[in-house]
Order: sequence, then C-alpha cells, then structure tokens
Amino acid sequence: MLRLQHDSHRRLNALTGEWVLVSPHRTNRPWQGQTEAKAEAAIPSYDPGCYLCPGNARANGERNPAYEDVFAFDNDFAALLADAPREEINEKGLIVAQGEPGFCRVVCFSPRHDLTLSRMSVGDITKVVELWREEFARLDANPLVGFVQIFENRGAMMGASNPHPHCQIWATQSEPNEILKESVRQRDYFESRRTCLLCDYLALELEKRERVVCENDGFVALVPFWATWPFETVLLPRRHMVALDEFGESDSRALADILSQLTKCYDNLFSTPFPYSMGFHQRPSDGAAHPHWHFHGHFYPPLLRSATIRKFMVGFELLGSPQRDITPESAAERLRASLSR
Amino acid sequence: MLRLQHDSHRRLNALTGEWVLVSPHRTNRPWQGQTEAKAEAAIPSYDPGCYLCPGNARANGERNPAYEDVFAFDNDFAALLADAPREEINEKGLIVAQGEPGFCRVVCFSPRHDLTLSRMSVGDITKVVELWREEFARLDANPLVGFVQIFENRGAMMGASNPHPHCQIWATQSEPNEILKESVRQRDYFESRRTCLLCDYLALELEKRERVVCENDGFVALVPFWATWPFETVLLPRRHMVALDEFGESDSRALADILSQLTKCYDNLFSTPFPYSMGFHQRPSDGAAHPHWHFHGHFYPPLLRSATIRKFMVGFELLGSPQRDITPESAAERLRASLSR
Ligand SMILES: O=P(O)(O)O[C@H]1O[C@H](CO)[C@@H](O)[C@H](O)[C@H]1O
Ligand SMILES: O=P(O)(O)O[C@H]1O[C@H](CO)[C@@H](O)[C@H](O)[C@H]1O
Repeated sequence: MLRLQHDSHRRLNALTGEWVLVSPHRTNRPWQGQTEAKAEAAIPSYDPGCYLCPGNARANGERNPAYEDVFAFDNDFAALLADAPREEINEKGLIVAQGEPGFCRVVCFSPRHDLTLSRMSVGDITKVVELWREEFARLDANPLVGFVQIFENRGAMMGASNPHPHCQIWATQSEPNEILKESVRQRDYFESRRTCLLCDYLALELEKRERVVCENDGFVALVPFWATWPFETVLLPRRHMVALDEFGESDSRALADILSQLTKCYDNLFSTPFPYSMGFHQRPSDGAAHPHWHFHGHFYPPLLRSATIRKFMVGFELLGSPQRDITPESAAERLRASLSR
Repeated sequence: MLRLQHDSHRRLNALTGEWVLVSPHRTNRPWQGQTEAKAEAAIPSYDPGCYLCPGNARANGERNPAYEDVFAFDNDFAALLADAPREEINEKGLIVAQGEPGFCRVVCFSPRHDLTLSRMSVGDITKVVELWREEFARLDANPLVGFVQIFENRGAMMGASNPHPHCQIWATQSEPNEILKESVRQRDYFESRRTCLLCDYLALELEKRERVVCENDGFVALVPFWATWPFETVLLPRRHMVALDEFGESDSRALADILSQLTKCYDNLFSTPFPYSMGFHQRPSDGAAHPHWHFHGHFYPPLLRSATIRKFMVGFELLGSPQRDITPESAAERLRASLSR
C-alpha cells in the first residue's frame, strides 16, 4: 500500500497536468547550505526615497498624488509595451518569435510604506480588491489584451525591490504558459464530466479537511494535494466564478478577509514577514465565455524550515520535475496551527 | 517588422513547446533589490569537515576511500528510495499519486575540495564523463529505472550545500515533466519531417553564428533562441547520439573539453566562480530506441548583471511565463567575449 507520509511518490497537479516528486522520508536531512538574510525590522511609514509613497517623484519624473488608500499607474519600467508589432518570425518551426504587445500597471495597496497585507484591515484590503476589479475590467475590454495577470512579489527574497505594499498587473496579448496548461485541463475535465474541475476538487477537500488552512463564507485557502513549494496554497471561491467581473460586493470582502487570514498565518509560521509571490488566475480576455474556468489565487512562498532557510528549486527541479520533502498535509497542519484566533 | 533587439516579444522553446517573454528595452532598469553574497574566496584543498573529501566520514558512518580521481556512492539523504511501492491512488482524477521508486547517487569530480570544473584539466574532466557513462549504463539496465537525470548544483546560490566539486544522479521510474515535454516535441518533429529536431536546429545555429558561444570537433555550446535564464546555454553534440551509451572515447573527451571551455567563459564573465545548475537530457531508460532523442546538456545560471545581481524567477514567471530583459543574442556575444584564448 502506498503511504503518502512515508514512501517516495509523485503527485499529479490536476490543474496543469504536471507532476511533483514527494520525499517525505527526507525531512530530517541537515541543512548546511546558504541561509537568507532576515527581513529588516524597522521600516518607516513614509520613505522620502520611495517612488511609491504619496507625493514622491517617480523614475519618469512624474509625481505621485497624495493618495489616501489605493493608487494605480503605468509601470515606468514596463516589460510589455503597447506598440510591439503583432508579427511572427518562423524559421522551420525552430526559430519562432511573435511580437507581444501589452500593458504593465503598478497598484499601491496603501499610502503607508511599512504595511503588508497581513497588517492591513480587511476594509482596506477590500479597497485593493475593488481596484483589481476596476483594472481588470478596463484591461479585459481592451482588444489588444488576451490575458490579465495580477501578481505580488513580496519580500527581497522574491525579487521585490521595494517594501512599499504593492502589486503588479501584466496584461499580455497571448496566454502565458501556465494559463494555457490550466485552460486545457479545465476544459478537458468539463467536456468529459460536465462539471467544473475546481468545484469538484474543492468539494473533495472540504470533505477530507486534511489540507484546508482557513476559510470564510466566500473562500477557502488550502495546500493543494500537488503543492510544489513547501507552504504553497491556493485560494478557491466556493461559488463558481470565472473571473473578477463576476464578483459582487460580498465576494470582494470575502477575498480580502481570506487574504488577511492567510497572510497572517504565513507571518506567524516562522515569526517573520513571510516572502511569497502570489497572483490570480482567471479566464482569458479573448471575449469567449470559458465556463470551465474557475477563478483562483496561488501563493508560492519559498521558505522551508525557518525565516532564513528556503527551498531551492534548482538542479532536478529545473531539469526534471519539482521535488519537495515536507508533505502538503503536514504543511497544512502547521499553517492551521499558526492561525491567529 | 518585428525587431528582436527592440520590441517586446515572445519566443517559442522548440524543445518544450513553452514560451518566454523577452523585453529588450528593459535592460537599463535600475536594480534596487536584493543582492547576493560574493562567493568566498579561500577554500582549502582538503576540508576535514567535508563529507565528500577522501578518507572522511559520511552521515551514515561510512568512510570515503582515499580516492584519487573520481568517486561515486549512494546519496545518504536520497530523495528516492528503491522500495517505494509502485502503486497508484486516484480519486476522480483530482487526487492522484503514484509510488516513485528510484536511486540517488553522488559523484565526486575530484579529491580536491577547492576545484571547480572550470579549473580542472580536460583530462580530469574526461574521467568524470567516463564515470557518468558507467553510472548511466548501470542504472539504464535496471528494470526499475525509467529515466536517469545527471545534474550539478554549483554555488550556494543554487542550493549547493558543499563546495566540493560533485554532481548528483537521480534515477526515477517515471519520466520527469521536462523529459515528457522534450519527448513529445522531438517525436512530433521527427514524425512529420523524418529528421531530428536538434540536428536541424544546430545546423541553423551554425549557419547564423549569432548565438554560438564555443565549440570543438564534437560539441557546440550556444545560447538557445528561447533561453529563459540570462546566460542559459545548451550543449549539443554535432553527431546525432540519443544517449551516453553511444559515446566513444573521443566524444567523452570532446564533452569534457566543451565543459571546460564553457565553465571558464562563465567564470570570466563576472570574474566570479559562476553559480549554475546544469545537467544532461537523453532518451528515457524504458528499453525503447527513441531515435528522435538527441543527447544534450543544459546550463541554467542565475546571474544577470554582476556577481551579486541575479535574475529572480518570481511573480509573472511562476504564474505566467518566464521573462527576460537581455536578449539571447547579446548574452551570447558577451559570453563569447569572455572566452579565454
Ligand atoms: O540534494 P541536495 O544537494 O542536498 O539538495 C539540492 O538539490 C536538490 C535537487 O535539485 C534540491 O531538491 C534541493 O532543494 C537542493 O537544496
Ligand atoms: O518588475 P520588478 O518588480 O522590478 O521585477 C520583479 O518582478 C518581475 C515579474 O515577476 C520579474 O521579471 C523580475 O525578475 C523581478 O525582479
């Protein structure tokens, strides 16, 4: 009999079709490798040198307004530009490129330089969700846009170059790799069973309750069965919604509340401002209905054992498949135990 | 007209079928984020506390022999164990796991604690290649093994917990994700054109010479058109070989020579012992011939601008597609300029 807490095994990511290798027996391996710097403790609530703080100047010379809650603007160092020609180069199917026009936005969560989602009120996070909805609606309606990716890189370990609480929105004409994979899997599941993959998965997880971390009326946060990062989680709305445009007021507040609960769990786990990349996946913006798509959020945090010991996604992971030691079930248990009540 | 050195665009990875976003205009963005520690300068040639040095004790109590060139043994903290039952759990296609039996080996490149491939002689690296061939032959013949992944994590930034020059070999029963993708693409190409994808690609690159870094009679190292890491390279044998068992003596020496040339380029580029993960892809070990498979090596180095500024594969990369600023063509040019002559 396969024992998921003992035997080396692989798990299928039902959303992408890829596999993750799990080595539960390896958790007590000593760590002699690189450790990370601790996040600095004292961040001022206003930093005159920060290009995101209210009233300050940005790289392009513009000055931020004296905003009082949330604020969005075009990224001064956009990875995507709207004027890229939508042309293709194709030599024998081996040298293939396409112009990728797009838009990059920056969204400040708060005028306060020193806050994090985990330390903002649910009311203030709700304003962020409402701004995501507005930004999504506008980009989604642009005929140049095929997909809208909202994401936050939090912490220096995740490449964030500024601690001011903010996220980015990259809107591309093409669907990114991860969206293509999730589209195929959700469509195939829907076509063969006439039900939604993530609705069915959530029902299964709510029955078992082995991997659920926290929840409210609208959302459930859980460590997916196929998690690759040690404390990876997914945020699932209980109601089937394909994109942010289906959110009602109570959904925005429920999402804000689950974000608050989950980021507090993370901070508590190793008593540190937890680094992560997080973001939302929803239907593509190509005008089609995509009824099989289920809106959801992903949290990918790198920490493994403490505030200074991270998981390295390197050799075997880059060349083969991701690998993890601690099981998703025990990660969920530890996160649940970190819930502040 | 699409200008690959100016416009934001995406490129197809012909080997995996995935895309990478390229933002050539973004290279002059300032970096205010995390920087890495410089690699320590002085490493002794023998370290009494190193579990890889000759004569020292390992975690399991065994003592290493007084080896004089190369040395292989079973990993004391193996991610894969041979006794995992090959059973499946499957609930509605949503909670799916399979036992994954396998083997993990460690290969020391040299008795010297302080060397790196870049500082070893071609003759000594040839001994390493010969040992890879032996290890591969033995694992390949084991009916439990479906794929053999040889890889090196070099440098603390890439999770290596010990500077002693060594690599790992993980042999799994299943084919890892990246192998599955490369298998499909190479098979499809072969079936539709009756030629090998990487043979044709190499011919195209040798015609253009825009992305070639270094070469010898047997091998070519180049920055692939679809590189995701800033200075990523691929090592391609000129002759079509599906796996290490087709190597003759001159092939081993040619591979050793190209490894020596390329790792020197990397070290020279930022005057630092260059961190990377590297490894080899070849046909699966399932007993079939796989004539469409072309043996090759991948180098994935994280550095971007200097010895202390790396590329972060975070937010958009984890949730969407990989993204790069510096183009593969300019990366190849800079690597070529670092070739020691
Ligand atoms: O086996 P090691 O060297 O201890 O571990 C290293 O390589 C493994 C294979 O790429 C990774 O899973 C680990 O995260 C990394 O720290
Ligand atoms: O746009 P930023 O915050 O400067 O950059 C950060 O996020 C991007 C999107 O995930 C990554 O491509 C960069 O490597 C990272 O440093």
